[in-house]
Amino acid sequence: MSDDATLAMLKTVSTATLTSLLFKRGFRNVFIQGARPLKAGQRLAGPAYTLRYIPSREDLDGIEAFRDPRHPQRVAVEEIPPGAVLVMDCRGDASVASAGSILATRMQVRGAAGIVSDGGLRDASGIAALEMPAWCAGPSAPTNLIRHHALDINAPIGCGGVPVYPGDIMVGDDDGVVCIPAHLAGEIAVDAVEMERFERFVLEEVQRGVAIIGLYPPTAPDTRERYQAWLARGQA
Amino acid sequence: MSDDATLAMLKTVSTATLTSLLFKRGFRNVFIQGARPLKAGQRLAGPAYTLRYIPSREDLDGIEAFRDPRHPQRVAVEEIPPGAVLVMDCRGDASVASAGSILATRMQVRGAAGIVSDGGLRDASGIAALEMPAWCAGPSAPTNLIRHHALDINAPIGCGGVPVYPGDIMVGDDDGVVCIPAHLAGEIAVDAVEMERFERFVLEEVQRGVAIIGLYPPTAPDTRERYQAWLARGQA
Amino acid sequence: MSDDATLAMLKTVSTATLTSLLFKRGFRNVFIQGARPLKAGQRLAGPAYTLRYIPSREDLDGIEAFRDPRHPQRVAVEEIPPGAVLVMDCRGDASVASAGSILATRMQVRGAAGIVSDGGLRDASGIAALEMPAWCAGPSAPTNLIRHHALDINAPIGCGGVPVYPGDIMVGDDDGVVCIPAHLAGEIAVDAVEMERFERFVLEEVQRGVAIIGLYPPTAPDTRERYQAWLARGQA
Amino acid sequence: MSDDATLAMLKTVSTATLTSLLFKRGFRNVFIQGARPLKAGQRLAGPAYTLRYIPSREDLDGIEAFRDPRHPQRVAVEEIPPGAVLVMDCRGDASVASAGSILATRMQVRGAAGIVSDGGLRDASGIAALEMPAWCAGPSAPTNLIRHHALDINAPIGCGGVPVYPGDIMVGDDDGVVCIPAHLAGEIAVDAVEMERFERFVLEEVQRGVAIIGLYPPTAPDTRERYQAWLARGQA
Amino acid sequence: MSDDATLAMLKTVSTATLTSLLFKRGFRNVFIQGARPLKAGQRLAGPAYTLRYIPSREDLDGIEAFRDPRHPQRVAVEEIPPGAVLVMDCRGDASVASAGSILATRMQVRGAAGIVSDGGLRDASGIAALEMPAWCAGPSAPTNLIRHHALDINAPIGCGGVPVYPGDIMVGDDDGVVCIPAHLAGEIAVDAVEMERFERFVLEEVQRGVAIIGLYPPTAPDTRERYQAWLARGQA
Amino acid sequence: MSDDATLAMLKTVSTATLTSLLFKRGFRNVFIQGARPLKAGQRLAGPAYTLRYIPSREDLDGIEAFRDPRHPQRVAVEEIPPGAVLVMDCRGDASVASAGSILATRMQVRGAAGIVSDGGLRDASGIAALEMPAWCAGPSAPTNLIRHHALDINAPIGCGGVPVYPGDIMVGDDDGVVCIPAHLAGEIAVDAVEMERFERFVLEEVQRGVAIIGLYPPTAPDTRERYQAWLARGQA
Repeated sequence: MSDDATLAMLKTVSTATLTSLLFKRGFRNVFIQGARPLKAGQRLAGPAYTLRYIPSREDLDGIEAFRDPRHPQRVAVEEIPPGAVLVMDCRGDASVASAGSILATRMQVRGAAGIVSDGGLRDASGIAALEMPAWCAGPSAPTNLIRHHALDINAPIGCGGVPVYPGDIMVGDDDGVVCIPAHLAGEIAVDAVEMERFERFVLEEVQRGVAIIGLYPPTAPDTRERYQAWLARGQA
Repeated sequence: MSDDATLAMLKTVSTATLTSLLFKRGFRNVFIQGARPLKAGQRLAGPAYTLRYIPSREDLDGIEAFRDPRHPQRVAVEEIPPGAVLVMDCRGDASVASAGSILATRMQVRGAAGIVSDGGLRDASGIAALEMPAWCAGPSAPTNLIRHHALDINAPIGCGGVPVYPGDIMVGDDDGVVCIPAHLAGEIAVDAVEMERFERFVLEEVQRGVAIIGLYPPTAPDTRERYQAWLARGQA
Repeated sequence: MSDDATLAMLKTVSTATLTSLLFKRGFRNVFIQGARPLKAGQRLAGPAYTLRYIPSREDLDGIEAFRDPRHPQRVAVEEIPPGAVLVMDCRGDASVASAGSILATRMQVRGAAGIVSDGGLRDASGIAALEMPAWCAGPSAPTNLIRHHALDINAPIGCGGVPVYPGDIMVGDDDGVVCIPAHLAGEIAVDAVEMERFERFVLEEVQRGVAIIGLYPPTAPDTRERYQAWLARGQA
Repeated sequence: MSDDATLAMLKTVSTATLTSLLFKRGFRNVFIQGARPLKAGQRLAGPAYTLRYIPSREDLDGIEAFRDPRHPQRVAVEEIPPGAVLVMDCRGDASVASAGSILATRMQVRGAAGIVSDGGLRDASGIAALEMPAWCAGPSAPTNLIRHHALDINAPIGCGGVPVYPGDIMVGDDDGVVCIPAHLAGEIAVDAVEMERFERFVLEEVQRGVAIIGLYPPTAPDTRERYQAWLARGQA
Repeated sequence: MSDDATLAMLKTVSTATLTSLLFKRGFRNVFIQGARPLKAGQRLAGPAYTLRYIPSREDLDGIEAFRDPRHPQRVAVEEIPPGAVLVMDCRGDASVASAGSILATRMQVRGAAGIVSDGGLRDASGIAALEMPAWCAGPSAPTNLIRHHALDINAPIGCGGVPVYPGDIMVGDDDGVVCIPAHLAGEIAVDAVEMERFERFVLEEVQRGVAIIGLYPPTAPDTRERYQAWLARGQA
Repeated sequence: MSDDATLAMLKTVSTATLTSLLFKRGFRNVFIQGARPLKAGQRLAGPAYTLRYIPSREDLDGIEAFRDPRHPQRVAVEEIPPGAVLVMDCRGDASVASAGSILATRMQVRGAAGIVSDGGLRDASGIAALEMPAWCAGPSAPTNLIRHHALDINAPIGCGGVPVYPGDIMVGDDDGVVCIPAHLAGEIAVDAVEMERFERFVLEEVQRGVAIIGLYPPTAPDTRERYQAWLARGQA
């Protein structure tokens, strides 16, 4: 399956489904803790392009730091590939911003898929008004220089307590963001689509009054049969 | 007064009013800390039906745990009485979900009054779309098995730092959820309705320019008189 | 420049802009941490009128405390000058409210500019429905007496980790609230308006595809020229 | 009873005893949370002399601030009465110091009874080597100016989440520090001495094999008799 | 192997060793977070006897609650079997005590092996002076009634974030306390003794200048040979 | 001045002194928050050699990870230069260890100056028994693999909220650890020695009854004179 097909599938499934499938494979820590969507209804699927911040230092991180054309935050915004997701390691510190609406707009123009940060975002309502989705620890006005020194592009990082390696697939929805290890994205996508098909059947069953036990998971002998019939009726 | 009448009254009053009335009776810790509504405008009143989670253990809480027909979370969903509120003790850990939209839908079908959790909920926008209201520490996608082992049904628990005994009356609104000790629900309901009647008068007074001091509480001699007149005019 | 002109200018600029300008002058800690707007789209600019809470004590802070006509919370509501912002020091404790909708309504009637608290607010949806804006650590139903003893009016306080001196200028938007030291408000307002004018130019440039580096900050030789031309075209 | 006699009694009893006696009178929040002794075996009893810090501001709290002869921290050290306890409100922030060994030595020379802080102390091993005892949130080297602005002397404060009014009696031991409201100190001291006398009896009973139930509290009919006999034997 | 032999072996090995062996078997969450020893050099090994606290409620948990001969905390102290460890679930709240020195002394008299709590302990220096060891979140004077309601004896609990089932084997040292699932204690004990024997060899090697890589773990071909020779020399 | 002379001087001065001198130069964030000494009386001065951990991932960080001869933690232990300080970035997570006594012993044999971690250390009493000093967030038994993946050697990191660049000078005492930017170490060392000389004079003055104001800082005209006389008497 092509990467594009995988991403297209992943964009249709929920982070709840994905965390369950990763848990089945032994992964317990894939959900970016504390990263909330800036607005409802956003969907995201794309490879991680990472930016690491360490704590800032007064002599290195004055306002003039942004004048350096090699400043990693600005370079990241200009070099992130189309379709990629900027994932920022802010050490979970939301007392300042990790980016603002001008940079986010530039990223949207360049075709980035979205922003994920365990820090804050400034001009958050401006970013929320973009088409490109964003998840973060909350709106926060102060410039990142007050707490953060942008250091590395595309090194492995921690974000919201989760290991994120460049190229891992970030998928986001209203619940938050999950990080899928790159080598598993294809098989997880296939399984997720099938699992959600079955859950649509389950939800219909529940809505017409069927009890959970035996249905979800389908341990009762006839559940699988009814599901096959449901599939055969083309209701998926 | 019947229980139904009590619940009907409690559904019309605010948690702010209820916590004040309980404070007057010496109760300082009745507001479920950290449980926020999944959507605005929800109202809840019903007896607590509790589910206790302890930390999960890898050998007991694999994905196959849900295949056990006696799994307490699933049993709770199938046995919660109509009109009752599922209150979950997640030890305040919102890093994973305590339930998702399929179980919530089943609960709605079965007539449950609502969900209160000091942990997360997954498929949170799906749950928010139900008529049955829910309060929790926030959306969180990962399956509960990663952190939680469902253990007890209808044992006394802590939820959001508050003691909740089965049968206590849970009342929720946009501010959050209060737990009223069962034996006090009737008298609190009566007092709350009266207190809110007075507060509607107070608010009208304030809107027409009356000062707070002497009015709220009504220490000025004429406040009670004006209130009686207001009542007599049938404006409550 | 008059104070009114300063406030009018500050009401049009963002807290992101203001924190950057204060950072340039050496101020790193001016953003009220944890104070979120009760609703989207609010704007605030006004001098701080402070109320300090210390932890409550059972024998001093019973429900009857509000009967005292000198209770500082009630006095504050009646004495806050028109146009001023009530800033409350709750030691970051959001487990109870610092005010509710009746007091907030009274403040609106009296012409107060808004409420900023690092504690909770009760009847939060009622307060959100007012025209007067409010920022706080979140909705919280319990009465302030459970945790807070109102002590001082218009003493210097900490709020959300920030020093707030009476008369400092509080400016709020969707990101949160910034506290501008009083003596800097005028010059900051002027700089902020100019900075946002330049950022509108930058945003247009970005939207038409210009790269960030060299543009923002304007280190490329021609950026300033293009900006002058943009200004000359009257597009600010 | 004289104040000196009260203090002498309080210096012999434990904070465990005192918190229980205050709880019996309805006080639930009298133990300074997070204030640990700098060394084992310290005892403290004396009236509170308070110092309030608010967050520092860069333009007011440079290193030269200490050159002001009216700097409240330095004034407090020079004006604290003999026998009094310096209680500092650091908003629970232990990332910096609230005092160091030079000031502590000066306080000892002036006859102060001790130091209680919910912030840090620097040169902590130097302070621990003094005879004057100290309790704090932990050793912390940075100067208070980085986070704290000394503002008020002898105003009511919060310390470790507890209300402390000037003149309240601070009592400390290895468990920590309790704040006794001033008007209760005398009666609490008397009760505490009696309670500890009884507990010495209980401990002897337990050491010789008597069960807790019926003994502590003394609900069994003969416990009080045995205690009277124990008292008569002069073993208290 | 008898249970006594298992416990005797476990009392000689470190919690570091045990957590590694449990990790090899897939257990990641067995170390009681935040439970520190009251004094250095303590060792503990014994089966868990649990006590669960929920948040207290003012009408149920007054000082007279201890007069009830069925009060679970007091019953636990009188019924804990010799050799067992009292493990208390305080929801990680160390603002109050979970027990004090009189109860601890009674437990020692009755032959209990030790105390583990994720809450506080009062009269902590008195408890530290006992032979029976104790681990907790720190000294804390206030009576448990202020925050805790003792509810269940010997139900499964969480303690310091770890699931503890009655009969699980608690092992403690200067690092803290590990909870070994009961069915694994025997095999873990055997492996631990062997692992520590090897680590004594490793430490000697390191002390005489051997590099870590190839030695620990013993991936170099000759490490195992040298270890066998060391064993043959009887130096274990 | 040679680097060795600088380090020798820094080893004699306190972290309190150093943080004050760095604050004078505009550095507010140089004290490793939460890193406590494993035993009293330790002193440390040496250049930082850093190790960065990110969150672990189950498929990469099994127990067999240590068999890789290139595992960064093991490589760090073998390659840290004599006199250097191993500084570990554990994201402040003390729920597991960042190293244990075998690795620490190897580091001591190799001549390392010490260990600084914002995570835990296992076999902490074993490490405390070494001559090489260590500071960390506390003893913690579990293996680092449970939470940490060792990634980078000698990259800039955050430790305890402080930026640490390889080669920065780490100085530790009973209060904790300060990180001096490398280029400032020489001048800071000289100033610190002078400042502590003056403070010894101040302490003697205080001990003989001189008041703080005018003495510390020496704003009174005669303080400097008395200091010169004290120096002349050779009492420094």
